[in-house]
Amino acid sequence: MLIGRVIGTLVATRKDDSLVGSKLMITQPLDIDYKPVGDPFIAVDTVGAGIGETIIYAEGTASRNAAGKPDAAIDAAIIGIVDNLDVYKDVLEKQ
Amino acid sequence: MLIGRVIGTLVATRKDDSLVGSKLMITQPLDIDYKPVGDPFIAVDTVGAGIGETIIYAEGTASRNAAGKPDAAIDAAIIGIVDNLDVYKDVLEKQ
Amino acid sequence: MLIGRVIGTLVATRKDDSLVGSKLMITQPLDIDYKPVGDPFIAVDTVGAGIGETIIYAEGTASRNAAGKPDAAIDAAIIGIVDNLDVYKDVLEKQ
Amino acid sequence: MLIGRVIGTLVATRKDDSLVGSKLMITQPLDIDYKPVGDPFIAVDTVGAGIGETIIYAEGTASRNAAGKPDAAIDAAIIGIVDNLDVYKDVLEKQ
Amino acid sequence: MLIGRVIGTLVATRKDDSLVGSKLMITQPLDIDYKPVGDPFIAVDTVGAGIGETIIYAEGTASRNAAGKPDAAIDAAIIGIVDNLDVYKDVLEKQ
Repeated sequence: MLIGRVIGTLVATRKDDSLVGSKLMITQPLDIDYKPVGDPFIAVDTVGAGIGETIIYAEGTASRNAAGKPDAAIDAAIIGIVDNLDVYKDVLEKQ
Repeated sequence: MLIGRVIGTLVATRKDDSLVGSKLMITQPLDIDYKPVGDPFIAVDTVGAGIGETIIYAEGTASRNAAGKPDAAIDAAIIGIVDNLDVYKDVLEKQ
Repeated sequence: MLIGRVIGTLVATRKDDSLVGSKLMITQPLDIDYKPVGDPFIAVDTVGAGIGETIIYAEGTASRNAAGKPDAAIDAAIIGIVDNLDVYKDVLEKQ
Repeated sequence: MLIGRVIGTLVATRKDDSLVGSKLMITQPLDIDYKPVGDPFIAVDTVGAGIGETIIYAEGTASRNAAGKPDAAIDAAIIGIVDNLDVYKDVLEKQ
Repeated sequence: MLIGRVIGTLVATRKDDSLVGSKLMITQPLDIDYKPVGDPFIAVDTVGAGIGETIIYAEGTASRNAAGKPDAAIDAAIIGIVDNLDVYKDVLEKQ
């Protein structure tokens, strides 16, 4: 899983039936310093995430599992809202 | 899922049976400013997308789900036509 | 799916049983101008592709579907021979 | 599979039900010289890994298999603790 | 599938049960000129590959298929030993 921020929404009237009723959120991947890394993508929201919220997302089968739609045309989903990251970067100096 | 633009079509007489009847669209991935990012690829159209349309696409199992062909030799499919992107980039400044 | 060119063959006597009888083709990914992009890889041929042919390939489950071997140790397969690419790059200038 | 180091934990009260009870560990991918490579990500711990431990992780279906939750919203999991890497780099000079 | 060279082994006492009995080989991806490309990773050996051998490897479901463990925490496996690569690079000049 990875962390990201919801930065927008996508509207599509003509879309796969399995996406009907799903909120399509434009999501910017973040690194653990909350800095943007990589390109934004579209994820289905499954936890009621709002614009500006820092979230966790999953890809592939995990995303369809989160959406409860194993047969859907979904390959990325927001699966949690980040409360807190506790990071101990000093352990990276260790051999 | 990601957004892209249909920039062409691919014709292949000799191909896997599961692709017969599917429109093979050359698709250029776009970023959220509609600028090309990464390399074009081939996606099966499942929503009647035309040349020049801005679309949403999915990869892997999600693409076969969209095509309604779980056993097909498909790993990318166009699953929606973008009406609108509402992007709030200022939320990226937030810690 | 993506396009590529068959640039060679790989011979392996000791290999997974599921690969026995499959032609292992060295495949160079191409962009839509037929220029090499990325690194060559090994794909199972499922359409009788020859050296130098421009092909379509799929990865993951789609490749096992094309080979008709859902339980095989295959993660890439040649699934079609490209007759023609019709590309309309001017549509990329459109907002 | 790849190796990494556990560098932190993520707390999320609002998350997919399938993640309840799972420890979400911030994991930094490492190369075989134990140097950071690529971006940290979130993995479910399945072997009791602690902060600073060098681990093995798997992605996709393998991660759900390790967590024993095939239908979960999980796409990366810690599946082992590295005792030792025996590396013979000289074999790379061989043609 | 891709080619690589076995450059070492990884020892892990604490690991997912599905890995018990599997040899964990440190594998360096190679290009078709046998030059290292990308980062080493850990693959389960399924064909008795030794240190220094040039191998073929598969990822994802294909790797679990090769290991004969569809429910394992495996996402990469060595599936063959390369005898020979016949490469015809001149076909890349062709339009």
